[in-house]
Amino acid sequence: MTSSAALDLAVLASAVELPDAACYRAALERQQRLTKPAGALGRLEPLSAWLASVTGACPPRPIERVRVVIFAGDHGVARTAQTSAYPPEVTAQMVLNFVAGGAAANVLADLNGASVRIVDVSVDAPVDYLGTHADAVAAYRVRQASGSIDREDALTYDEAVQAFNAGRSIADEEVDAGVDLLIPGDMGIGNTTATAVLVGLLTQTELQLVVGRGTGIDDATWMRKTAAVRDAMRRGRPRMDDPIDLLSAVGGADIAAMSGFLFQAAVRKTPVLLDGVVSCAAALLAAHINGRAAEWWSASHRSTEPAQHAALDALNLEPLLDLGMRLGEGTGALTALPLLRAAQATLADMATFDEAGVSDRDDSA
Amino acid sequence: MTSSAALDLAVLASAVELPDAACYRAALERQQRLTKPAGALGRLEPLSAWLASVTGACPPRPIERVRVVIFAGDHGVARTAQTSAYPPEVTAQMVLNFVAGGAAANVLADLNGASVRIVDVSVDAPVDYLGTHADAVAAYRVRQASGSIDREDALTYDEAVQAFNAGRSIADEEVDAGVDLLIPGDMGIGNTTATAVLVGLLTQTELQLVVGRGTGIDDATWMRKTAAVRDAMRRGRPRMDDPIDLLSAVGGADIAAMSGFLFQAAVRKTPVLLDGVVSCAAALLAAHINGRAAEWWSASHRSTEPAQHAALDALNLEPLLDLGMRLGEGTGALTALPLLRAAQATLADMATFDEAGVSDRDDSA
Repeated sequence: MTSSAALDLAVLASAVELPDAACYRAALERQQRLTKPAGALGRLEPLSAWLASVTGACPPRPIERVRVVIFAGDHGVARTAQTSAYPPEVTAQMVLNFVAGGAAANVLADLNGASVRIVDVSVDAPVDYLGTHADAVAAYRVRQASGSIDREDALTYDEAVQAFNAGRSIADEEVDAGVDLLIPGDMGIGNTTATAVLVGLLTQTELQLVVGRGTGIDDATWMRKTAAVRDAMRRGRPRMDDPIDLLSAVGGADIAAMSGFLFQAAVRKTPVLLDGVVSCAAALLAAHINGRAAEWWSASHRSTEPAQHAALDALNLEPLLDLGMRLGEGTGALTALPLLRAAQATLADMATFDEAGVSDRDDSA
Repeated sequence: MTSSAALDLAVLASAVELPDAACYRAALERQQRLTKPAGALGRLEPLSAWLASVTGACPPRPIERVRVVIFAGDHGVARTAQTSAYPPEVTAQMVLNFVAGGAAANVLADLNGASVRIVDVSVDAPVDYLGTHADAVAAYRVRQASGSIDREDALTYDEAVQAFNAGRSIADEEVDAGVDLLIPGDMGIGNTTATAVLVGLLTQTELQLVVGRGTGIDDATWMRKTAAVRDAMRRGRPRMDDPIDLLSAVGGADIAAMSGFLFQAAVRKTPVLLDGVVSCAAALLAAHINGRAAEWWSASHRSTEPAQHAALDALNLEPLLDLGMRLGEGTGALTALPLLRAAQATLADMATFDEAGVSDRDDSA
C-alpha cells in the first residue's frame, strides 16, 4: 500500500526504467525474415517491436490477461457552469451499469477476453448508492465530486496526493495479481472540461483548440464550457511547477488517480494501451514526472476531442484507430486491443523464409 | 456448379438485391437507446447498421464463421517486364506456405477464429508442385500464369468466363457450407500491375496515380512497371464495354475468379470484408456488372497502393483501418475483422437507458 503522505517527485521519477531496446531491435530483425515483403504489415511491425520491448521477450508472449480499470468521478464545474449535456446523476447510474455488465466497456471487454474493474474515486453521490458493492468499488474514494475548477480548487493538495497514490496502489494490485496489459477508462460528467484545462496548460495550446464537444453538447453549452476552461486555465497557470499541485488546482480526483495508475504501470514495467482524452491528459501529467513513462504506453485511437490530439502529439504517440469514437470507459483501447494481438501473433507465429523454403527478394535482378 | 459457357451479364445483374433497409434503420434507432451518448461509438454505429442490413436481423447475430479464400495466380508481365521485387517462384512457395499454415493470413485467421482456403487459379508452376494437395487446391485452376498484359491478352474470353464462374462456384460452395462473412485474399507476382491497369481504366485515373510500389520495388522497377501499365491501359481501353472482355484483355485469371466470387457473394446475400488493392479492383469490376453488389461489401483497410484508394472512392467505401499494410492475402481484412465484431457486440449486448435505469440527455436544461 502506497502512503498518502506528500510525494517526493524526484524519487518517483527515478523509479521509471526504459523498455528493453535489444528486444525492440530483435523484433524488427525478425520481421525481416518472416514470409512477407519487408514492411508489408505496416504499423503492426513497429507495434510488435514495442510489445517485445515492454515485455522483454522476442517474440513477445500472447496478450492474455487484460484489465480495464475505470476511474469514475464527477466535476463540480459541470453543475455550476453547465458544461455537459448530461446531468451528474448519470455517473452513479453508469457505475451501477458497469457493475451489472451493461456498458459498452463491459461488452467490448467480454468480446476481447478482458475484465473490467470500476473504481469510484469521486462520484457526485453519497456512497450508499453502491449498496453491497461499496466495499469493492469505493475502497479508494477520495471525495464526493471534485471542485468547480473555474472558481475553486478541484482538490486539496493532500487529496491530490491521496488520489494519485490510490491510482498507484491500484496499479500495484493489478500487476501483482498478474496482468499482461492495462487499459485506463474514465466515467464522469465534466471530465472533458478538466482535461481540456490540463492539456491546454501542459501543451501550451490555445483555448479554442482544446475545448471539444464532450458527450455531444450544443453551441450554447460549448460557449459556457469554453468560458469555464478559460477561467480554470487562468487559475491553473501559476500552479504548473508541481504536477500534483496542478491536479489539485484544476484537475480532479479521478484524473489524479488515473495519473498515478499510469505512472505506476511504467514503474512496474507493465504496458498500457491508452484510451481517449481523459487517459491522454492523465498520461501527459504522469509524463511530466518522468517522460520515460510514456515509453510504456501505446495510443489506441484518435477520439473526436481536440485536447486528445494535442496530448498525443506532446507524448509523441500515434494512435492506431481513427473511428470518431468519443465514449471513454476504455472503449477505444478495447476496440484497438485486437491490433496488438495481431502484431504479437504475426511476429511470433509466422514462418520465416528459411522455415517455409520461400525465396527472398530477387537479388539476381 | 455454374456453367463455364458465355455469361449473360444482364441476367447476372438482375440477380443482385439490396440489403435490408428496415434493419439498417432499426439498428440506428437502437443505437440511440443504448447507454452512451448518441454517436459516441463513432463509425462502429453505422457499421453495426450495415451488419444488420446484410444479415437481415437487428440486432445482427455474432460473426462466427468467417472464411478467407485466397486466389493465387501469376502474371506474365512480372517476368517479361520485370515489374516485381520477387521472382515468380515465390507464388508456388507461398501457396505451400498457406497450406502449411505459416503465412500471415493463417496466423491472423487462427487468431480471429477464421479459416483459410487457398485456390490456385493460375500459378506459374506445373500443377505437380502441389503434390497431394493438388485436388483440393487446384480444382479450379484455369491456366499456368496469365499473359503479359503489356503485349498480349491475359486470358482468352473463354478462360475469363471460366475463371469468373470458378469464383462464383467457390462462393456458392462457401455459402452452402454455412458462413457469416467472406474475405477475399490474393497471392501472386505481378498482380498489382494488372490491378493498376484495371483501376486506371475503370476509374479514369491518371497513370501515375495508380501505379504503386507493390511488394516494395525500387525506382527503376517502378519505371518499368509504369511503362507496362501504360502499354496495358492502351491495350485495354477499347475493351471496356464488357467487364469479362476487359478481364481477358488486361486482367488475369486470379482477378477474374475473385470478381466472380465477390459478385456471387452479393447474389447470395453474404457480407464481404474487402482487403487490399487486388480485392478492390476485383470488386470494382463486379460492381460494373451491377453497382448494388457493393452494398454487400465493406472496406477493411487503406493500403499503401494508390489504385486501392481510387477503387474505394469509386465504390464509395471508406476503410476502417489505415495502418500502412500492403501484404494482401486477406490480412488487412483479418486485422479489421474484430472491429465488425465490436460493432455487432455493442449493438446487440449493451444495456439500453431503460434497462439500466440511466438518465438520458438533460432535457430540463
